[in-house]
Amino acid sequence: MISKKWLKLIHSLQVKKYRKLHQAFLVEGAKSVQELLSSDYQITVLFTTQEFYNENIRLLSRQSFELQILTQEELEKTGVFQSNNACLAVVVSKPNLPLSVTSNEYALILDEIKDPGNLGTIIRIADWYGITKIICSESTTDFYNPKVIAASMGSFTRVQLYYCNLHEYLQHTANLQVYGAYLNGIDVHTVSFASSGLIVMGNESQGISQALEPLIKQKIHIPRYGGAESLNVGIATAVICDNLRRAVGND
Amino acid sequence: MISKKWLKLIHSLQVKKYRKLHQAFLVEGAKSVQELLSSDYQITVLFTTQEFYNENIRLLSRQSFELQILTQEELEKTGVFQSNNACLAVVVSKPNLPLSVTSNEYALILDEIKDPGNLGTIIRIADWYGITKIICSESTTDFYNPKVIAASMGSFTRVQLYYCNLHEYLQHTANLQVYGAYLNGIDVHTVSFASSGLIVMGNESQGISQALEPLIKQKIHIPRYGGAESLNVGIATAVICDNLRRAVGND
Repeated sequence: MISKKWLKLIHSLQVKKYRKLHQAFLVEGAKSVQELLSSDYQITVLFTTQEFYNENIRLLSRQSFELQILTQEELEKTGVFQSNNACLAVVVSKPNLPLSVTSNEYALILDEIKDPGNLGTIIRIADWYGITKIICSESTTDFYNPKVIAASMGSFTRVQLYYCNLHEYLQHTANLQVYGAYLNGIDVHTVSFASSGLIVMGNESQGISQALEPLIKQKIHIPRYGGAESLNVGIATAVICDNLRRAVGND
Repeated sequence: MISKKWLKLIHSLQVKKYRKLHQAFLVEGAKSVQELLSSDYQITVLFTTQEFYNENIRLLSRQSFELQILTQEELEKTGVFQSNNACLAVVVSKPNLPLSVTSNEYALILDEIKDPGNLGTIIRIADWYGITKIICSESTTDFYNPKVIAASMGSFTRVQLYYCNLHEYLQHTANLQVYGAYLNGIDVHTVSFASSGLIVMGNESQGISQALEPLIKQKIHIPRYGGAESLNVGIATAVICDNLRRAVGND
C-alpha cells in the first residue's frame, strides 16, 4: 500500500505552486513512463502494477529509484487520470534555463497558450517535426501540468521549454527570421522560409498579443477554402510546421 | 423557470439512444447557436439568457420556435457544459441519408473515430478546407453527441455526415481515387493528388481496419522529422487536407 507521505506529495503535485516548491512533477501511463525511462529525467519514485513491471524489467533497470508495486485499483485512486492502469512516476523537474536558437534550426514561440491539452499537443507536433526548443510567455500554461505531460504522449522528454518575457527575448533575436501566425499575412503555401527562424503562435482566442506585433518580421496565414472561422492553435501549428519542413527540411 | 418536461428531454439527449428516439440533439453556447440560427436546421426550443437574447434579436427572428429566457445559473444547471453562459437549443436532427461524391470534389472517410473531440475537430478542419461531406463507419462516434457539436465550433452546420458500412460504400466508388493515411506509403508532400477523391482516416489507436486495406488505392503518409511516434488523427487530417488543397485547390 502507498504511504501517506507519498500520497500527500502526489496530490500536491497536481498544483503548480507545489510542483515549483518540490521541483517535481508527475508522469502517468505506460507510454509516457516508457519514454521517461529512456530519457535523462531523474525519477524519484515509481509506482507500477506487477504487469507493467514484468513487461518492462530491462527498461526499469536503467536508472535507480524507489519502486513500489501497486494494484491497478490503488494506482487509479492515486493519480490524476482514472484510466491509468500501468504506472505513475514522481520525477525531478528541470530548471528553467534560457534556450538560444542557432543559425541552422527552428524554434516555436508560444504567446499565452492557456489550455494544457493544446500545449501538450504542440509539444508532440514539435517533436514530430524535429523542433526541440519552445520558448513560452510566462502566462503560458505550465509544462509540468499532468495534462500537458499526458497530451505530449512522451514527447516532453525530447522537447525543451523555456518560460520568459517574450518581448525581451524577441528583442535579442536580430539574426533570426521571426514568423507569426495570423489570419492575414503571406499564404503559408507560398512563404520562402529562411534556413532558420522562430515561429510565433498566439493565444487560443486573442492570437498574438499586440505588444509583440512590432517584433514579428513576417506575418503568415493558413489559407482557408471553406466556412470555418478559425483553426485550433494545435492544428495551426501542425500545418505551419508541415509547410516549413516541406520547404526547408530538417538537417 | 424551465419545466420538468424540457429538463427531462434535455437530459435524455445526452444519450445516443434518446437522440435517435426523439430525433433531436442539443446545441450549446453562443458561437454554436449563432451558426445554428444561420443554418437550415430546425430549432424546437431555445433557452437563452436575457443578454444573449438582446444581442441576437435579429438572428433570433429568422426562425419561429419556442423561446424561454433563463438566468445564467439555470442555463448552466440545464446543459452538458458548465461554462455555457449564453444559450441552449433543442434541434431536430437530420436523417442519415447517403452522400455521393461527385467527380470534382473530395470527401473524408472516417473509420472508427471514437473520441467525440476528435470527430468535432475533424468536422471543423473539413469545413476550413472546403470539404462538406464525411462518410463514417457505423462504429464512429455519433455526430450529434454534444461534445462533437461543441468541438466543431459551428462547422456542424456546414458539413454533412453519413454513417454506413464503409466496406460496401468503398466498393461502389470505382471512379474515385481513394487515399488512405498510414505510417508508410507515399510522402504526402510528393503525392500527385487527383482532381477528386476520398481520404480515409483510421481509428485513433488501430489506424485503418485491415478489412478496408484492399480498397485503399493509394497509401499516403506524413513525413516525420523528429522523435514522436505518431500524430493525433485530427492533426493528421489537417496536414493531409492542407497538402491536398495546396495541390488541387478548391474549385
